[in-house]
Amino acid sequence: MSRLFTFTGSNQGPWVVTATNGVVGETMAEAKRVDIAAGPSPTHGEVVWRLRGITSNQRYVTRTENEQLVAKQVALGRPTSDRAAIIPIRKNAAWWALPQDERRAVLERSNHIELGLKYLPAVARRLHHCRDLGEAEPFDFVTLFDYAAADAPAFEELVEALRATEEWQYVDREVDVRLARES
Amino acid sequence: MSRLFTFTGSNQGPWVVTATNGVVGETMAEAKRVDIAAGPSPTHGEVVWRLRGITSNQRYVTRTENEQLVAKQVALGRPTSDRAAIIPIRKNAAWWALPQDERRAVLERSNHIELGLKYLPAVARRLHHCRDLGEAEPFDFVTLFDYAAADAPAFEELVEALRATEEWQYVDREVDVRLARES
Repeated sequence: MSRLFTFTGSNQGPWVVTATNGVVGETMAEAKRVDIAAGPSPTHGEVVWRLRGITSNQRYVTRTENEQLVAKQVALGRPTSDRAAIIPIRKNAAWWALPQDERRAVLERSNHIELGLKYLPAVARRLHHCRDLGEAEPFDFVTLFDYAAADAPAFEELVEALRATEEWQYVDREVDVRLARES
Repeated sequence: MSRLFTFTGSNQGPWVVTATNGVVGETMAEAKRVDIAAGPSPTHGEVVWRLRGITSNQRYVTRTENEQLVAKQVALGRPTSDRAAIIPIRKNAAWWALPQDERRAVLERSNHIELGLKYLPAVARRLHHCRDLGEAEPFDFVTLFDYAAADAPAFEELVEALRATEEWQYVDREVDVRLARES
């Protein structure tokens, strides 16, 4: 099972880019299409942007929370999921300097885990870590979401709610790339 | 400030290898000398082994513990530190599947943080993460320690105490490379 994933914005790939928005900080150039591949970078014609991330162990979740998540969790790639979002974020130095107990406390006050749960199983997600892939990564995390077009309003609610939290005050770069599956 | 470090065992470098022991699982070939470099791999003649790791945020330590650590902490590379150890370890799948609260509980029952504190400032250390550098890393962590020859017995006590803990039951590969600075 691959842990490393590469996200490539170019003129190739099954996902059509419907929007590229810089939410905080520098945005990314707009690509026409996106390819999401397990493993290292595949070859593409003209690469507009490339992100990579690796799935890893849980950093905050307790056993009880994990059981709730696993019970509702769904895999990416359901046939009905014709919409997706790739949201890379970077957190600032103040976040990374916080000890574990205080980062966890910020997540709790931000209802981060509850928010994710609330939109399951409508919105599937996979979190990829980038920060420790090397020292020159442009983002700390890339989250990939997918959902049915009918659940797009619910997805919008989820990202709006997250962006309003205390946790998001530590986000100093965020880009939001929306995708539709080629029909 | 570099976060990525490369450890190269070859016939070059300021550190002379005095012992290479496989503690758990497969050992590594014995190199004559070791070079420790900030950043990606420097060029060496005949490389016997190469490890890399990246310093990262604290994963378990609370604010109170962090304050105690910072108060006693010392930097690597003191002029009196003529001994060093490079100890790469890998933890098993059961460890990585544990939720955060249970990994923390194992560390607590293992007195991991207290043990590190007890041997400060005699033994300086730097923890490097490897697990999320990519999916084919041979180890999860590399810890570099340095100390004066007179503190070698204290260092021995520290590693023996750690290896006797509940936490170390999750270690499925460990190699211990001892070094002396060229005089």
